[in-house]
Amino acid sequence: MKLGFVGLGNMGAPMARNLLKAGHDLVVFDVVKSNVDALVKHGVGRVKGVNTPAAVLDGEVEAVITMLPAAQHVKSVYLGGDGLLTTKVNDVVLIDSSTIDPMSARDVAKAAADSGALMLDAPVSGGTGGAEAATLTFMVGGEEALFNRMKSLLQAMGKNIIYCGGAGNGQVAKVANNMLLGISMIGTAEAMSLGVSLGMDPKVLAGIINASSGRCWSSDTYNPYPGVLENVPASRGYTGGFGSDLMLKDLGLATEAAKLSKQPVPLGSLAQQIYQTFSLQGHGGLDFSAVIKLFAKK
Amino acid sequence: MKLGFVGLGNMGAPMARNLLKAGHDLVVFDVVKSNVDALVKHGVGRVKGVNTPAAVLDGEVEAVITMLPAAQHVKSVYLGGDGLLTTKVNDVVLIDSSTIDPMSARDVAKAAADSGALMLDAPVSGGTGGAEAATLTFMVGGEEALFNRMKSLLQAMGKNIIYCGGAGNGQVAKVANNMLLGISMIGTAEAMSLGVSLGMDPKVLAGIINASSGRCWSSDTYNPYPGVLENVPASRGYTGGFGSDLMLKDLGLATEAAKLSKQPVPLGSLAQQIYQTFSLQGHGGLDFSAVIKLFAKK
Amino acid sequence: MKLGFVGLGNMGAPMARNLLKAGHDLVVFDVVKSNVDALVKHGVGRVKGVNTPAAVLDGEVEAVITMLPAAQHVKSVYLGGDGLLTTKVNDVVLIDSSTIDPMSARDVAKAAADSGALMLDAPVSGGTGGAEAATLTFMVGGEEALFNRMKSLLQAMGKNIIYCGGAGNGQVAKVANNMLLGISMIGTAEAMSLGVSLGMDPKVLAGIINASSGRCWSSDTYNPYPGVLENVPASRGYTGGFGSDLMLKDLGLATEAAKLSKQPVPLGSLAQQIYQTFSLQGHGGLDFSAVIKLFAKK
Amino acid sequence: MKLGFVGLGNMGAPMARNLLKAGHDLVVFDVVKSNVDALVKHGVGRVKGVNTPAAVLDGEVEAVITMLPAAQHVKSVYLGGDGLLTTKVNDVVLIDSSTIDPMSARDVAKAAADSGALMLDAPVSGGTGGAEAATLTFMVGGEEALFNRMKSLLQAMGKNIIYCGGAGNGQVAKVANNMLLGISMIGTAEAMSLGVSLGMDPKVLAGIINASSGRCWSSDTYNPYPGVLENVPASRGYTGGFGSDLMLKDLGLATEAAKLSKQPVPLGSLAQQIYQTFSLQGHGGLDFSAVIKLFAKK
Repeated sequence: MKLGFVGLGNMGAPMARNLLKAGHDLVVFDVVKSNVDALVKHGVGRVKGVNTPAAVLDGEVEAVITMLPAAQHVKSVYLGGDGLLTTKVNDVVLIDSSTIDPMSARDVAKAAADSGALMLDAPVSGGTGGAEAATLTFMVGGEEALFNRMKSLLQAMGKNIIYCGGAGNGQVAKVANNMLLGISMIGTAEAMSLGVSLGMDPKVLAGIINASSGRCWSSDTYNPYPGVLENVPASRGYTGGFGSDLMLKDLGLATEAAKLSKQPVPLGSLAQQIYQTFSLQGHGGLDFSAVIKLFAKK
Repeated sequence: MKLGFVGLGNMGAPMARNLLKAGHDLVVFDVVKSNVDALVKHGVGRVKGVNTPAAVLDGEVEAVITMLPAAQHVKSVYLGGDGLLTTKVNDVVLIDSSTIDPMSARDVAKAAADSGALMLDAPVSGGTGGAEAATLTFMVGGEEALFNRMKSLLQAMGKNIIYCGGAGNGQVAKVANNMLLGISMIGTAEAMSLGVSLGMDPKVLAGIINASSGRCWSSDTYNPYPGVLENVPASRGYTGGFGSDLMLKDLGLATEAAKLSKQPVPLGSLAQQIYQTFSLQGHGGLDFSAVIKLFAKK
Repeated sequence: MKLGFVGLGNMGAPMARNLLKAGHDLVVFDVVKSNVDALVKHGVGRVKGVNTPAAVLDGEVEAVITMLPAAQHVKSVYLGGDGLLTTKVNDVVLIDSSTIDPMSARDVAKAAADSGALMLDAPVSGGTGGAEAATLTFMVGGEEALFNRMKSLLQAMGKNIIYCGGAGNGQVAKVANNMLLGISMIGTAEAMSLGVSLGMDPKVLAGIINASSGRCWSSDTYNPYPGVLENVPASRGYTGGFGSDLMLKDLGLATEAAKLSKQPVPLGSLAQQIYQTFSLQGHGGLDFSAVIKLFAKK
Repeated sequence: MKLGFVGLGNMGAPMARNLLKAGHDLVVFDVVKSNVDALVKHGVGRVKGVNTPAAVLDGEVEAVITMLPAAQHVKSVYLGGDGLLTTKVNDVVLIDSSTIDPMSARDVAKAAADSGALMLDAPVSGGTGGAEAATLTFMVGGEEALFNRMKSLLQAMGKNIIYCGGAGNGQVAKVANNMLLGISMIGTAEAMSLGVSLGMDPKVLAGIINASSGRCWSSDTYNPYPGVLENVPASRGYTGGFGSDLMLKDLGLATEAAKLSKQPVPLGSLAQQIYQTFSLQGHGGLDFSAVIKLFAKK
């Protein structure tokens, strides 16, 4: 299949490489010219670089995947002066894998529908590791028939491809899940720190929690206390993984969506403030489990 | 084995009946005389009621289990004028299954040791349902050899008997686990309410979370959103289960322990305040998953 | 002076009437035609209604005041297809008295400057009562010389006209002040409720706080506990005053500005969530001091 | 008058010296012998040191003032084996100026009444500076007639002597006031940091807040932003003043009292957690306005 790809950053570049590996040819755009050049070099003869988002559509592509940092970039790439929706888009499937707020996703989806385009929102989880290994989870919103048609394409980049309902629901699922993740991680950090400061061995405590009602992904799969689990960021100085500032961004999307929806989220909101405090203290680049540093005694 | 039992309330009474069922004879005390009478009647000829905690020890019992509402009662039963530690307690094993703060548990354990008694703290989780069905989890602190000796006795009342380390560590494990449970439950309630208010189907959302990094016991085993799971309080009007006011009590123990230990627990503390607000609004008797009523739109 | 006025809602209408009273003639626009008609009728012969924001400028006005509900309306009225900045605006002074986030205010100010217009942001406090009585406080951002030139015009509508610094600073001052106000109000509500529930007379407690370090505007001028002060909303069923949903809006602006500025505001953020919870329970129309209902025992 | 004094620490010692200055003779006790010796040396011939709290009463004193760090010390000095209430206390007035939780204060007051003693709880605010200068504020609970009789005695140590109602109400007033103070201080720190990070001059912002509804003692008298006010801790590196760990202690008393009273205090509780976090980062010895360091950008 001939595909378009817009946004070749830390996540987009490996995703695009996996599409090449699966046999697709690409027409690509990125505001950073060197990102385009690197991919053109990587996929010799099968990647064409262009100078605007709209130009991606000139190449007779069947679908376009976009992977951008924030809602403002998505709006610009879709709705801007040289954006995708300025061109004839009939029959092309537009798939936005950026993580943005559900309301913006729905605004773009509506504009796409008005232009006659087919569109899915399909944010991912799994980080750069998952992008490289093609093991991302895609949470997808849009028409179910379209989802079914595009599922195998997404499988070239990910492992779990989940249908979440109508337009924007991929983003809803992601912000809801990641808000709960941020809360659980801080909760686990507090509980582990409390137990250890009261005299318990961290491995014993984690074992009990994981066999009890406090069990969560943050305790049993990604425990923030150093030494409890191997092969997690906590056991290698909180490097790699999912950055604290990315969690902060997702919590910001969640509380923004909650505000627009008139929905109280007191723990989600406090989690955002805790990550903001952590970031202000200079730790935004560490894995998000490093937030335990705010609570653990030295 | 001949055993003592002090505290025959909602939890203690079924625990004592399970000990009878396992073949043990009992000497029992409760401040409410009718509780004692009921058990004497239940275990005809094998249960003897006495008038003070200390008198339980007169009956040549090998161990005494205590199951009391709060630290003040535990201190009174152990350290009071007619308490267990006023009597010769050598060789008798004292097992406190009350849920109290770790510092009080350690104070009592120290007094017991000073009196020559052997003691374990062994708080439980599983609620009245688990007490009836003998499926409680016991989190046990004290000497490991003593734990091993008493494990089979506890198995007459529970299913998981977990060793947590030295004196008080059973209480530490319980407050740490339950604080995380309270946080996760509110977090799940916020995330489910947010997702639904943004247009998602609650079952679809729960399914995605449970397959992702937001997964926790509160989402996959005890989901607070009505209709997501069968056979949980959320699907029967939040009756049965673990009462909101009991969660409030446990969060109070956790934040008190954190204060004494100079340990910040911001989410644990806010969770306590949310349950206190919920209780003030008259809902303390509902299952603790009912806290979602504070967030869900009608 | 001949002036333009855009936005004749609950706040704008009385402000416009005060301008008439001070001798100014008006050219006015509002999306609700009946609002325009009412003012035309009120100021017979001295008010002209027009059909677009841009048309206000056709009337050779010296300045235009805009008073709109939210940033989206401000952007539409200034930057939209028939907005103020589509026309020749040289020498006309544009004064936006809407309460919006500082970043949006600065975006509009920049667009105005690019169009050659002179602009001030001048949000108000004092509510509809202050708008009627011409006792509003104006917090003004923009060029100081321009502020000095316009000060007497604003005095036709308000009592305190405060210069806050460059463009957007009027909005900054307002969100910072109102965030602190929201925090202080909830803090006062908690402290009064706590003291009374522990047995103190509310008037005695308020008197002590007001003579001590807990003193604040919410305790000494607008106390939320019924009966402590006369002539405040708490003593008339929380009617009148500054609505809870308006406080919720301002806290939303504050936390949004904080997010963009990477600034932690944990209490401000929790205050927002508390007002959101209060609003969800159906009390958004009550004065913002009614938030004490969440804490006070019946 | 001949008086007893128990507790000659940083606060008690200067208070006792002021009593000497006012012409009273003293019988004193402190667990630290050198504190007693220092006062004996200071008030040559007019101060007698004794070896137990109870022994203070042997000297035919008319009243005893106690000034102790926490509830456990108060209970020990009043109710302990050689405590004040073990002796005949008829007609002696006992005045406890320690800051403790209201429930403990009422327990001691009840024990005193049972022993036939007259008692007042009279916690102070004003810090060591106020203790030296005899400008403390006393918040007094107990019988009003007794308060009136003792008022002039307290005036030897303080400036504002405020009657708060029955036994324990002095403590209630203090915890309620100081909880609101802690909340207002953090709120002011957040609002000032937010405004400055958005581009405002801190003095201008403080001036606007202090003329508006955000006004509070923490903004107009004790502003935490460096350089806004002279002669406050913020302008001398946060030295002197009221220590962060003392604020943390008072917030702990407030949330404990709230828990026992089943009263939600979400902002008070989060304020406690913020001061606990600040203390964990090593700043407990700084003035409590230094908490702004958690929020202000460098």
